[in-house]
Amino acid sequence: MPRDPRYDILFEPLQIGPVTIKNRFYQVPHCNGLGYARPRSLAAMRGMKAEGGWGAVCTEEVEIHPSSEISPYIEGRLWDQRDIPAHRLMTEAVHQHGSLAGVELVHNGFHAPNRTSRLPPMAPSAMPVSAYDPVHARAMDLTDIKNLRKWYRQAALNAREAGYDIVYVYAGHCMTTLMHFMLPRYNQRSDAYGGSLENRVRLTREILEETKEAVGDQCAIAFRFAVDELLGKDGMTSEGEARDVVGMLAEHPDLWDVNISGWTNDSSTARFEPIEGYQEKYTTFVKSLTSKPVVGVGRFTSPDAMVSQIKRGVLDLIGAARPSIADPFLPNKIAEGRHDEIRECIGCNICVTGDNLCVPIRCTQNPTMGEEWRRKWHPEKIAPKQSDDAVLVVGSGPSGLECALQLANRGYQVTLAEAGTELGGRSTRESRLPGLSSYARVRDYRSNLLQQKSNVEIYLDSKLDEAALLEFGFKHILLATGSRWRRDGTGRQHHAPLPGLELLPVFTPDDLLDGNSPAGEVVIFDDDHYYMGGVLAEKLITEGQKVTLVTPDVKVSAWTEFTLEQEKIQSRLMKLGVRIITSHSVNAVTSDAVELACCYTGRTSTLPADALLLVTARDANDALYHSLKSNPAALAAAGIKTVEVIGDAYAPGSLASAVYYGHLAARCFEGESWDAALFEGERPGLVN
Amino acid sequence: MPRDPRYDILFEPLQIGPVTIKNRFYQVPHCNGLGYARPRSLAAMRGMKAEGGWGAVCTEEVEIHPSSEISPYIEGRLWDQRDIPAHRLMTEAVHQHGSLAGVELVHNGFHAPNRTSRLPPMAPSAMPVSAYDPVHARAMDLTDIKNLRKWYRQAALNAREAGYDIVYVYAGHCMTTLMHFMLPRYNQRSDAYGGSLENRVRLTREILEETKEAVGDQCAIAFRFAVDELLGKDGMTSEGEARDVVGMLAEHPDLWDVNISGWTNDSSTARFEPIEGYQEKYTTFVKSLTSKPVVGVGRFTSPDAMVSQIKRGVLDLIGAARPSIADPFLPNKIAEGRHDEIRECIGCNICVTGDNLCVPIRCTQNPTMGEEWRRKWHPEKIAPKQSDDAVLVVGSGPSGLECALQLANRGYQVTLAEAGTELGGRSTRESRLPGLSSYARVRDYRSNLLQQKSNVEIYLDSKLDEAALLEFGFKHILLATGSRWRRDGTGRQHHAPLPGLELLPVFTPDDLLDGNSPAGEVVIFDDDHYYMGGVLAEKLITEGQKVTLVTPDVKVSAWTEFTLEQEKIQSRLMKLGVRIITSHSVNAVTSDAVELACCYTGRTSTLPADALLLVTARDANDALYHSLKSNPAALAAAGIKTVEVIGDAYAPGSLASAVYYGHLAARCFEGESWDAALFEGERPGLVN
Repeated sequence: MPRDPRYDILFEPLQIGPVTIKNRFYQVPHCNGLGYARPRSLAAMRGMKAEGGWGAVCTEEVEIHPSSEISPYIEGRLWDQRDIPAHRLMTEAVHQHGSLAGVELVHNGFHAPNRTSRLPPMAPSAMPVSAYDPVHARAMDLTDIKNLRKWYRQAALNAREAGYDIVYVYAGHCMTTLMHFMLPRYNQRSDAYGGSLENRVRLTREILEETKEAVGDQCAIAFRFAVDELLGKDGMTSEGEARDVVGMLAEHPDLWDVNISGWTNDSSTARFEPIEGYQEKYTTFVKSLTSKPVVGVGRFTSPDAMVSQIKRGVLDLIGAARPSIADPFLPNKIAEGRHDEIRECIGCNICVTGDNLCVPIRCTQNPTMGEEWRRKWHPEKIAPKQSDDAVLVVGSGPSGLECALQLANRGYQVTLAEAGTELGGRSTRESRLPGLSSYARVRDYRSNLLQQKSNVEIYLDSKLDEAALLEFGFKHILLATGSRWRRDGTGRQHHAPLPGLELLPVFTPDDLLDGNSPAGEVVIFDDDHYYMGGVLAEKLITEGQKVTLVTPDVKVSAWTEFTLEQEKIQSRLMKLGVRIITSHSVNAVTSDAVELACCYTGRTSTLPADALLLVTARDANDALYHSLKSNPAALAAAGIKTVEVIGDAYAPGSLASAVYYGHLAARCFEGESWDAALFEGERPGLVN
Repeated sequence: MPRDPRYDILFEPLQIGPVTIKNRFYQVPHCNGLGYARPRSLAAMRGMKAEGGWGAVCTEEVEIHPSSEISPYIEGRLWDQRDIPAHRLMTEAVHQHGSLAGVELVHNGFHAPNRTSRLPPMAPSAMPVSAYDPVHARAMDLTDIKNLRKWYRQAALNAREAGYDIVYVYAGHCMTTLMHFMLPRYNQRSDAYGGSLENRVRLTREILEETKEAVGDQCAIAFRFAVDELLGKDGMTSEGEARDVVGMLAEHPDLWDVNISGWTNDSSTARFEPIEGYQEKYTTFVKSLTSKPVVGVGRFTSPDAMVSQIKRGVLDLIGAARPSIADPFLPNKIAEGRHDEIRECIGCNICVTGDNLCVPIRCTQNPTMGEEWRRKWHPEKIAPKQSDDAVLVVGSGPSGLECALQLANRGYQVTLAEAGTELGGRSTRESRLPGLSSYARVRDYRSNLLQQKSNVEIYLDSKLDEAALLEFGFKHILLATGSRWRRDGTGRQHHAPLPGLELLPVFTPDDLLDGNSPAGEVVIFDDDHYYMGGVLAEKLITEGQKVTLVTPDVKVSAWTEFTLEQEKIQSRLMKLGVRIITSHSVNAVTSDAVELACCYTGRTSTLPADALLLVTARDANDALYHSLKSNPAALAAAGIKTVEVIGDAYAPGSLASAVYYGHLAARCFEGESWDAALFEGERPGLVN
């Protein structure tokens, strides 16, 4: 289809210093858990973004020296010339599609405990490192500053040699030495690098100038700067010193890449920043102070919002990290008039958990993310079918939808049967909970495409039993029948049902999703530790119940630490009046209370309760699967070749894993086993 | 020197199945953060143990299949034949010294969230994975069990091909599928693999038999089994089912490797298990039930204790993980009559933090640990001196002692000046705190050797000022002048002094170490998060004070989670009656109270206090260094070529980092820079 002319502006080229970007789609630096440890996987992932139309594709932060290394986190490394070949894989993959490759050079200062290099960390003033490691950073002396400038310059030269078109000086996220020098709370120096703002900016200015001098003839110099820390007067603000910093350095870089800090704010989830362009109010001033192009982010997935940013003079380039992860082909889809096919980021930050857990990136919406090299998956291409067999997919949750869509993409004749009256399964149901409305995008993207396909039939309100499945005549059946929350309290903490459950009204998340809510004094026992317990606490208290959340962990929704949400969740719940009891387990139930036990001492106590909501673990809905599999003769008689169970019905997990299992089953359908692609891996060399 | 004949028994060979171990020193499997990611570093480290005389040297746990991978933790991998070459580096390094190489094959079941492979985890019964990842393990069906047996068998064959002499079947630490099957709380199966103990042991028995059948002709089959979980009736106990398990499988393996579970108990710190041989009471029954040799652990560093284990029929082989890390040459030192030169493990578990943080292992006592390949460090050898210059080391703390010792080993004429009346600095001072007596071993090992050296002079009670240093005529001065705890409350939480500190008696850890203790209602503000805050709380409450510990973190002594101590510390403090206030900061001080602020909501509250103990951050004692360095003319006039600052005086850190910096300074003295060796690194290959 032809492009909508309203979006033409997004495809105008732009000069950035000595280079030209072909359009306005700019993949800003983002971490991914591949980094220096998996250079081939990384290059394939970045190359895919270029293939999908992103005019510029940048690295994650790239360390310039072992005096600043944040192992075990897996970022980039350009410590010296020996690291160049790995980077070349990436720049070549990006250049192959006419895009620019950018590198974000960083020195992390006291944010880097140097767990592997074991060199003493450095900071403007002496202080403990930001992690809890028993290591202090020493105050940099003038030799250290000279060395840092030298390392930065050499890294820029190495970056140019590696083929980068854009070289960053990075002062974002309060994780960088340059930002540490700017902030008075960290910089208590009394020399030319401390005191006045001009002094505190001096090091950044010198490095910008020296980077330009070193590689500015061939490479654009980008400056990434966080204009607001959202700390009010205790930090950098877009109405305070940030304005002065931009003013002082206005024409120094060739490109301003501006955002907010810390990372939890910059990469806020949809639960806490539901609106596209949420950084605009902070960054919009920048263009008024510089003649250079400005790129910024805001989880942009809609071309209209992007156009508006440019037309209103907020940004020149549409920066994206998460939207480019969810859909590497977002630019091309707009270019080809297929913007309704964009796989929109749901803002769940499961991508960020990869970096935080030091493992490869994943994405709820894009199951191919991080699998471009290992499994050779392409987000927009899939192998054609192996037979003309008809396939039945039972269940239209995330896994069933994805599996049906990909089997249809392969050319199979697919029938999708949904027991309920709406598509989407848990993505639909959970999207009605506070803050989770974007989860419906998992359904919307897939149902939109499925409904346009001639080789797909969808039946709602079609609960199928074993007899029906044996009768229908499909050669293959994939069961995506989901999971149910357990009602007996078993999970990580308990391996036998809680005693006394019959004495008190007991609820599970499914009950609440079905519209049956507890009332009065509700105790939530959260032994799940992801978002559900906290979300339901929020729902119940805003509905007027008295809510106590009990968790055996030391914090609420503990696993959301990896999605950058934990502090925000616990703060919100406490401010709403939820009573929080950490490090305790619900061990027994009476007719008007629950019995708690302290996880440290075992001491018990009693908590009055009108109802107990158990958020502990889930059971796969796999009865149909097991009953079919237990009768091979009946399957053979019915001409059924394969029966598979996928998604939460196979192993209950995250939305992302449900989509992934559905995708994997479709890719491997009539093909290789699920694990076959995993053995190759990226391994360290064995000889010097 | 000749070996003490009392220790001859430790050097008797022993038949283990088809192989013979040359002595009784057996390095049991232990993790190390090198693993599959750093095979050359790993091989060099393991080879060093063999060179030091360990008759058997084993790997860490080695994964046999991607359905069980515990990334980001860096263990071994033997997924298929492609992993064999990396393992060969290790077996060859070990064989070079006539030792046996052992491999601990593992399937981790629901302990493995499979963050990288993204395969659904497996367990005897369906349940959430043990980490908080939103992933459930599915119940293994009979095909899964058959596959697991097949993978185990293939891994054993691959292990033999890689050159291993001992192949483990691993059912320890509650982290393994085999142990999960044995435990009724995880195994709720109703088939032949669940129910009776015989059924629950079936899978282990099958795998033991099949491993023996596959490689038993050439390799000894070891079975590692945790005989007690220290959970009483809720778990495996050495007086209950463990006895039956040993009875049932008594003659199946060629070697029993027995310990306790979980890992926090097995590898307990000296603070919680101060006595050598602390596992004896659990494991001693094993030998009475089997004719096969038995190896066990207990942080053995004394040859007398080792001999006693063998003579009393507790163990046949002296197992060691941590003692072999602290001193890879422990066996040879006993063999050569130099057992007083053993670098005894202090039981601090800093080694374990490497694995827990997914970075290379380190050791307080042995700064060369993990540096055998990267820096080419040998624990017993060091390059000879580069000149005849005399060297002065100022300060006899961990860093000064280590630096002086290594410079003396290089042949330099070394003078060590200590301001106080005893050697050891903080290792001496802190060893007087509850549970930390083993820290004195840092001093003892070094002072013992230093005092025997003819090229070392030690002066106590010798506080030196700038004038004295300029006058003495040393060509080189290394300042190891330590650090002091801050008295103003600054650290991670606060960057400006706490208001009101003059109103209340304020103490630092140094005051308590000096013998000045607070009395009455004492509030400890712990913004350090390693052991000091918790240890002082313990000291004060046992001395009769009323103690409240306030921490901005969600738990007490948070970083000790990585040393496997956190839960034990917090439990002990709570049981002793210490009041614990987490997620709060001390923000201000009045004449009879401190003001707290909640880290989640900012809400303030008041806590009565007679005294405030600040455990926040430290300042380097580097005034002497800076004053010397600021006067190059005076240095030149005095003939002083170099002045260096090392240890906590350079960057305050752990005991381990103080020793490390001292060692590093001695290695690099008159040589290359501290960072020169770091750039080579181990990198992934770039071509298929």
